[in-house]
Amino acid sequence: MSPLALPPSARPGDPLSAIDTPALLLELDAFERNLARMQAAAAAAGVALRPHAKAHKCPAIALAQLQRGAVGICCQKVSEALPFVRAGVRDIHISNEIGGAAKAALLAQLALHARMSVCVDHVQQIEALAAATRAAGSRLDVLVEIDVGQHRCGVDDAPAVLRLLDALGPHAQLRFAGLQAYQGSIQHLRGHGERRAAAALAAERAGAVVAALAAAGQRCEVVTGGGTGSVEFDLASGVYTEVQPGSYVFMDGDYGRNEVAGALRFEHSLFLASTVMSVGNGERCVLDAGLKSLATDSGLPGVWGQPQLHYVSANDEHGIVQCGVDGGVDGGDVARPALGSQLLLVPGHCDPTLNLHEQLVAVRAGRVEALWEIAARGLSR
Amino acid sequence: MSPLALPPSARPGDPLSAIDTPALLLELDAFERNLARMQAAAAAAGVALRPHAKAHKCPAIALAQLQRGAVGICCQKVSEALPFVRAGVRDIHISNEIGGAAKAALLAQLALHARMSVCVDHVQQIEALAAATRAAGSRLDVLVEIDVGQHRCGVDDAPAVLRLLDALGPHAQLRFAGLQAYQGSIQHLRGHGERRAAAALAAERAGAVVAALAAAGQRCEVVTGGGTGSVEFDLASGVYTEVQPGSYVFMDGDYGRNEVAGALRFEHSLFLASTVMSVGNGERCVLDAGLKSLATDSGLPGVWGQPQLHYVSANDEHGIVQCGVDGGVDGGDVARPALGSQLLLVPGHCDPTLNLHEQLVAVRAGRVEALWEIAARGLSR
Repeated sequence: MSPLALPPSARPGDPLSAIDTPALLLELDAFERNLARMQAAAAAAGVALRPHAKAHKCPAIALAQLQRGAVGICCQKVSEALPFVRAGVRDIHISNEIGGAAKAALLAQLALHARMSVCVDHVQQIEALAAATRAAGSRLDVLVEIDVGQHRCGVDDAPAVLRLLDALGPHAQLRFAGLQAYQGSIQHLRGHGERRAAAALAAERAGAVVAALAAAGQRCEVVTGGGTGSVEFDLASGVYTEVQPGSYVFMDGDYGRNEVAGALRFEHSLFLASTVMSVGNGERCVLDAGLKSLATDSGLPGVWGQPQLHYVSANDEHGIVQCGVDGGVDGGDVARPALGSQLLLVPGHCDPTLNLHEQLVAVRAGRVEALWEIAARGLSR
Repeated sequence: MSPLALPPSARPGDPLSAIDTPALLLELDAFERNLARMQAAAAAAGVALRPHAKAHKCPAIALAQLQRGAVGICCQKVSEALPFVRAGVRDIHISNEIGGAAKAALLAQLALHARMSVCVDHVQQIEALAAATRAAGSRLDVLVEIDVGQHRCGVDDAPAVLRLLDALGPHAQLRFAGLQAYQGSIQHLRGHGERRAAAALAAERAGAVVAALAAAGQRCEVVTGGGTGSVEFDLASGVYTEVQPGSYVFMDGDYGRNEVAGALRFEHSLFLASTVMSVGNGERCVLDAGLKSLATDSGLPGVWGQPQLHYVSANDEHGIVQCGVDGGVDGGDVARPALGSQLLLVPGHCDPTLNLHEQLVAVRAGRVEALWEIAARGLSR
């Protein structure tokens, strides 16, 4: 190896203590239980599972999901889909609108290699997709996104859907496949009852559009949506034919704060391994993991298994930890971790944390089993 | 080109409108003026400029800084330094403590190719550096970090510095080069007067340690520290021999909120190009740039040149923009940007935003001039 190459952060067989930090760990036993639980719940409900790959951006995970019965995956951006197509995934839904000729051209190319679908909520998007698929000689499935309460993307009602179907009509290579009805703001409502009520409202809105389209003679083959926070309700709704959860494979600090009442529970499988890099004059505890190693948009990370340690501040490359029981800090009542100690952090928000890393260190029973490439990291176009 | 390759986001000669978004732009005229202003201020003060590369992570920018007179660069992590050494940078200070044998070994390897220095605040770090340099046959400069008010890393006083010098003594390959005295929490104090007062206090603390060491017969060749928010005071302090500003090359929303009173002003040169990807039923404005394209730890981005547009919420891959004058939102008093419009955003915090991207699109006079690799992106070990 050249002396100027960066050594890997870990090697298969290494104990956790040998991992060079910061490094993102995937605890395989918990991860595999999460995959099995979600697949079993979808199968029991007779609803298709199309997990969202924006959470993991990792082809090895997508292939593990497909192997267990997922019908395909979702991606949020066209460029994000590229490494999954390369890895052999053959059914990808872009769960988003796309703008511009460059993105439409790339999507039309991908559609030569995999069954691709995409959302629209404006006739201008349809015209761009039509031109690009015509040029590439490819076909696309098109879903109309409807707004079921998030007020982000999507049209409001069945007449607006029908106007878009009129625009699709002349383009034989664009097939209407159904509706996307995603309500992101439900996912992190904390109470189980309030999440149930909000999910019921979203499903009711989606169902009303489906019924109005049926009355107009238009069948929706697919109604897709849902996330980790709403999936138990989406599966039982009778409206969704397909669900798109992503974070369930990992869980994170934010989802960990949701109240869970049903049988569908998921475990933390994602950890950021960090090291105490400074203790100052013996009175502080500074970690080597900050804003550039974990996302803080949904709160600071927790310290796994050590509730007396509080990660209280993230700088670019430093994390400040205070020590104390019952929310007390640095009261001298608990021992500070020693210089060089390794701590495992639970990131507040998994999706943008994965987006900071090149690799997942897959571990089992305290040993490194494999390194998995986060191949779609940074692909936001 | 393989149909499964991702096309570049832009090509030299392209107009801005042809850039595939999200894409990080560097406005070269403003950037070059920023470099010249900082270099001129350091030269006038007779203080060495060692810009911090953690802000840009981009070898092309480091080489531009060195060409104008910078004595070297800072990096915050050992792995971060690797692409700069590869690009020919021959003087790098790791402005941080490092822990563990793997990092010490990599640093000792880099020191065979470039003059490297690093901070310590504990004898255990010195022992790891001594072992690694002995094994590699290389030499390192070592700076003791002192805490001048941030209470992050660093020892408190001259006796603690002298204890570390005793530990350095037996290791001829480790040379004591001086002190690092960085006070990060000063940088974003808004008022010019309060920043001046806080910087004076930090410099006073550093000066007291320097004087106490001199009284003990120990000269400090280098006293390094300072950032974009404090640099005008650091340059005038008579204590710092070297300054480490990073963000001045770009500026960002957070630094833009600092009150500036002196002659040393910097311009926004960093923009995230984004596109309106959805307008829903014509009543909304959703951008294709969210948490995965820009850092929000120091606030949401501003919309450049359009004060009537307000970026109010960031999802993973969506940005929600509201429209209105005088802080009003969606009051119907201003026109919404059309679907497909390109907006330029000013990120709230430059460092972690650069860390999300592979490339900077360097532009001048409305045209793409070059693509610069952000080669140290993601290198946090």
